[in-house]
Amino acid sequence: METQPVIGFDIGGTNLRAALIVDGTIVDLISEPTPTDATVTEDIIVDMVETLSRQQEVAAVGLAVAGFLDPDCESIGFAPHLPWRNRNLREVLEQRLQLPVRLEHDANSAAWGEYRFGAAQNVKTWVFFGVGTGIGATLMHNGEIYRGAFGTAPEFGHLTVVPRGRPCSCGKFGCLERYASGTALEDTARELAPRFPDSSLLIDDSPQGTTIVAAAREGDSLGRAIMEDFGSWLGRGLSFVVDVLDPELIVVGGGMAEAADTYLDTATAIMSEEIVGSGHRQLPGVVTAELGPEAGMIGVADLATKLL
Amino acid sequence: METQPVIGFDIGGTNLRAALIVDGTIVDLISEPTPTDATVTEDIIVDMVETLSRQQEVAAVGLAVAGFLDPDCESIGFAPHLPWRNRNLREVLEQRLQLPVRLEHDANSAAWGEYRFGAAQNVKTWVFFGVGTGIGATLMHNGEIYRGAFGTAPEFGHLTVVPRGRPCSCGKFGCLERYASGTALEDTARELAPRFPDSSLLIDDSPQGTTIVAAAREGDSLGRAIMEDFGSWLGRGLSFVVDVLDPELIVVGGGMAEAADTYLDTATAIMSEEIVGSGHRQLPGVVTAELGPEAGMIGVADLATKLL
Repeated sequence: METQPVIGFDIGGTNLRAALIVDGTIVDLISEPTPTDATVTEDIIVDMVETLSRQQEVAAVGLAVAGFLDPDCESIGFAPHLPWRNRNLREVLEQRLQLPVRLEHDANSAAWGEYRFGAAQNVKTWVFFGVGTGIGATLMHNGEIYRGAFGTAPEFGHLTVVPRGRPCSCGKFGCLERYASGTALEDTARELAPRFPDSSLLIDDSPQGTTIVAAAREGDSLGRAIMEDFGSWLGRGLSFVVDVLDPELIVVGGGMAEAADTYLDTATAIMSEEIVGSGHRQLPGVVTAELGPEAGMIGVADLATKLL
Repeated sequence: METQPVIGFDIGGTNLRAALIVDGTIVDLISEPTPTDATVTEDIIVDMVETLSRQQEVAAVGLAVAGFLDPDCESIGFAPHLPWRNRNLREVLEQRLQLPVRLEHDANSAAWGEYRFGAAQNVKTWVFFGVGTGIGATLMHNGEIYRGAFGTAPEFGHLTVVPRGRPCSCGKFGCLERYASGTALEDTARELAPRFPDSSLLIDDSPQGTTIVAAAREGDSLGRAIMEDFGSWLGRGLSFVVDVLDPELIVVGGGMAEAADTYLDTATAIMSEEIVGSGHRQLPGVVTAELGPEAGMIGVADLATKLL
């Protein structure tokens, strides 16, 4: 039986991306900025499906979502970076699209992609640690995604790592993802800039993560200090992963994965130091994702094919 | 078939306790201070088995250990509060005792006891959170203990909650268990004492946890402030449990469980505030253990009967 084309969405805090996927391979990919209104966002999702369906008939749609889903993956509960609150998005979209729709947490989607086609094939106990706008993690054990009792496990991004630290969009202060995410780089840049007057990074222009990463690669002292700081906090986060979940492999994915050359050695070193019993226990392997920013779309599209 | 008597040990950082157990009920219980030397500790364990075997023939021995075990529960790797380092204690004791010996992590043992006979019978996804000298936690999912890839999961006691905070015996600073454990109460007492000059607690005498708890129950302002502080930090720890593992039930056990009236309301309130998506998600139940300080001995004895 020939595989039918499916659409995989990546519903992120910054962009809505959608890919037409055939046999696990991306055929076409489009992107729109994420609106702040729920209904407008749904309209755009429907438009994007129509755009991608013009060339080939589509059999199902999967959406990788940066937020909490109920354990049955029907509705979005709380999503700090998205407009929905307690909305049964699966049902809404299925009615509007007249297609089978599969929702999945974005990190779970990317993890599923890496487990099926990427860096974690056949690994028994492993963690996907996605770092982009925020942090999203997945635990896979014996081929299954561990969801917890209410579908929210495992959440590392909003653990408090600095009491009374940087304010977070979740309403708390000092969350891990305010220090170890793509969007944290600008805050770190502003904090560290006074110590590096000779840097070529223009902090007044609020440098984007890509500018900072490029500066670090070119040897700029401030750029390197920012990525070093990022790596230290990521290492702290990974030490939490190792202490609590004790996986045999950690796959670092998400938008920041492509800059791993600027921070992963630091992160792995800090992780190894920070875990309890350091030096007296086995460490997990730490690698970067293989499917890149498309892992979530590929993973959730593969999950959507199970509806057919 | 009548159940044969078994011995369950609780190998803690402060005391070695051993119980003769028949049909899940403790018949006799003895205790010795934990020595700092590994061989001396083993000698005392053998002596305690002999003492408890005088009245009835014993069929097996289980040891609940406050330290990391390998995934096969053969040897103790790293145990901050115990004298062994990478010692195959199971084999050593089996040869000396000429009895089947079962090792298990202390929190796992207590969790197993609560799952079989106590507060968590038939609960699908739940966490035992033991608080005594240190913190030891267990995740049970679908009737199985989650051990992670190398047998150390889940470790919450040594997550860094205060950068450059109180020094910990594990070698790090600011570990959760330096703020939310029985042994942390004295540190908190010394820190808070200057603010409560009218307190009847005599801080110069390094008040034990039981003295502090008693003072709190009598309404002493310092005693209550110490237990409030403990509850806040425990709540922070439980928020980590909820964020990362998302259980339907948390059972608070260990030596501090019997003082739950002085802190559990605070802990539950802080837990509810600190989790990400607070107010937008279901919360786990939080209850105290039912088997008390004997949960570990009862649990590991039940596990040891599986060797027969």
